[in-house]
Amino acid sequence: MHPANIPVYQQRVEQHLHQLLAQRTTTDARLLEAMSYSLLLGGKRVRPFLVYSCGTMLGAQLSDLDGPAAALEALHSYSLIHDDLPAMDNDDLRRGKPTCHKAFDDATAILAGDALQALAFEVLSSHTYQQVSPSAVLNMVRCFASASGYNGMCGGQAIDLAQTNHSTSVAQLERMHQLKTGALIECAVQLAWLCSPNPKQADLDALLRFASALGLAFQVRDDILDIESDTVILGKPQGSDTKANKSTYPALLGLDNAKAKAQQLYVDALSALDSLPYNTDELRAFAQYIIERRF
Amino acid sequence: MHPANIPVYQQRVEQHLHQLLAQRTTTDARLLEAMSYSLLLGGKRVRPFLVYSCGTMLGAQLSDLDGPAAALEALHSYSLIHDDLPAMDNDDLRRGKPTCHKAFDDATAILAGDALQALAFEVLSSHTYQQVSPSAVLNMVRCFASASGYNGMCGGQAIDLAQTNHSTSVAQLERMHQLKTGALIECAVQLAWLCSPNPKQADLDALLRFASALGLAFQVRDDILDIESDTVILGKPQGSDTKANKSTYPALLGLDNAKAKAQQLYVDALSALDSLPYNTDELRAFAQYIIERRF
Repeated sequence: MHPANIPVYQQRVEQHLHQLLAQRTTTDARLLEAMSYSLLLGGKRVRPFLVYSCGTMLGAQLSDLDGPAAALEALHSYSLIHDDLPAMDNDDLRRGKPTCHKAFDDATAILAGDALQALAFEVLSSHTYQQVSPSAVLNMVRCFASASGYNGMCGGQAIDLAQTNHSTSVAQLERMHQLKTGALIECAVQLAWLCSPNPKQADLDALLRFASALGLAFQVRDDILDIESDTVILGKPQGSDTKANKSTYPALLGLDNAKAKAQQLYVDALSALDSLPYNTDELRAFAQYIIERRF
Repeated sequence: MHPANIPVYQQRVEQHLHQLLAQRTTTDARLLEAMSYSLLLGGKRVRPFLVYSCGTMLGAQLSDLDGPAAALEALHSYSLIHDDLPAMDNDDLRRGKPTCHKAFDDATAILAGDALQALAFEVLSSHTYQQVSPSAVLNMVRCFASASGYNGMCGGQAIDLAQTNHSTSVAQLERMHQLKTGALIECAVQLAWLCSPNPKQADLDALLRFASALGLAFQVRDDILDIESDTVILGKPQGSDTKANKSTYPALLGLDNAKAKAQQLYVDALSALDSLPYNTDELRAFAQYIIERRF
């Protein structure tokens, strides 16, 4: 099942990002072009979806969720630009198009990433919130900064680089993914929760368990697709993990066990939602979409 | 005159930065080492000085100022790491030591910069403030994000790269510096003002005029030192601006006129302080130190 709101929320966050970029006064046109190129390149918009879906489920105002949704996507976009750089993963293709440093140049790509990180914090902190207090917005910034940095996404990317060309255990691979992508997926549900009018700790605990399992399921599925899918559908070269000597779940566990692991994580994600006293249908459908996706 | 508090505040912010890094749980030791290397490399700590000096002048609590001082230095440090990269200015030497990508590698340097930007926002938002309200902290984050990004530092660096190897006017050079370094220098006094118990708009206006003139004076002085000083004292190769085909004030105005411009900016900085009903001796001495420095 494909949740009906996936394209709705995709369109919503893209419109908001578009407006944000249009509001910039021109300092350097080429830098702004590179930022727009990467930010509006499309993508699944997983993090914005989680913000909108969890947030509305918890009673948050939709327009308040535009801030964290856009911030997460700007941050995600910066991380992709920098990960693709020649000094990092050296990828030429992203979402079926030339990566930022290929479409522009290395210096512009580094700067576009840097400026998108700043933009993420600017959007999150400066968004016009209707029902979120300054204290709660400040808590969002804290959560977001922590998930992005050394103890989150950046630390995960460093571990990923260190693990490349080296044999790793499943536990090490899992820790890398938990930091590199899991931290921001969990941050997405936490930001949604902070936007809600009556945030209860038990709800957050359940949502974080859901997000953690979902984030890992997404990665395992990514590894499987890298073997089973083809370049045109993926939007990046098929087999690029193997070529780059990256550890993957299928490589460590075998393809069948990797599929079983993805299925188990999907079940874990659903069971985390059981305790929530809300309509969790959309989150369940989204988990199914993530686990069954072909790209 | 050399304000007595320069070493005091340098030591204070360095101790705080050291503590911050020590609090990180280990994700990737090499990344943390690269962050520490760049952050604790020394430097004039101009931005922390302005935070501490303006803040205490305005009645802010010293321990509250540790947050913005450390945040500004983390952000400044990230910008130096990225500016030095081979794809950007390709500098081997910074403060008399190998630049981050020389001491480590390009990927680690990119990531260390990224993680230091996140750390800056984390420190600013998560610091334990005694006398600053959550609303005021949130305003600090907004100001900081805006000064760091496309409409501030990153935009300035993009213009700097675009101007390299091209002839520019004094106005274009000034705009580049205003964005690349001026925005954060102005942000420093604004953060100090936001930490103060009774922030008045007129005080901020005067402090921003002071910071703007001081920031530009610093750059003009930098350009002059690049010609007049030598490598050992500067901690970076003498003549590197000329070698890199960067526009400079001496190149555009001639050396004597550049010196006169620096002197005029110094006078402008001092006169901006005249309207402030506080003891501005330390800020005046600091401006003198900036304009008379040999490195």
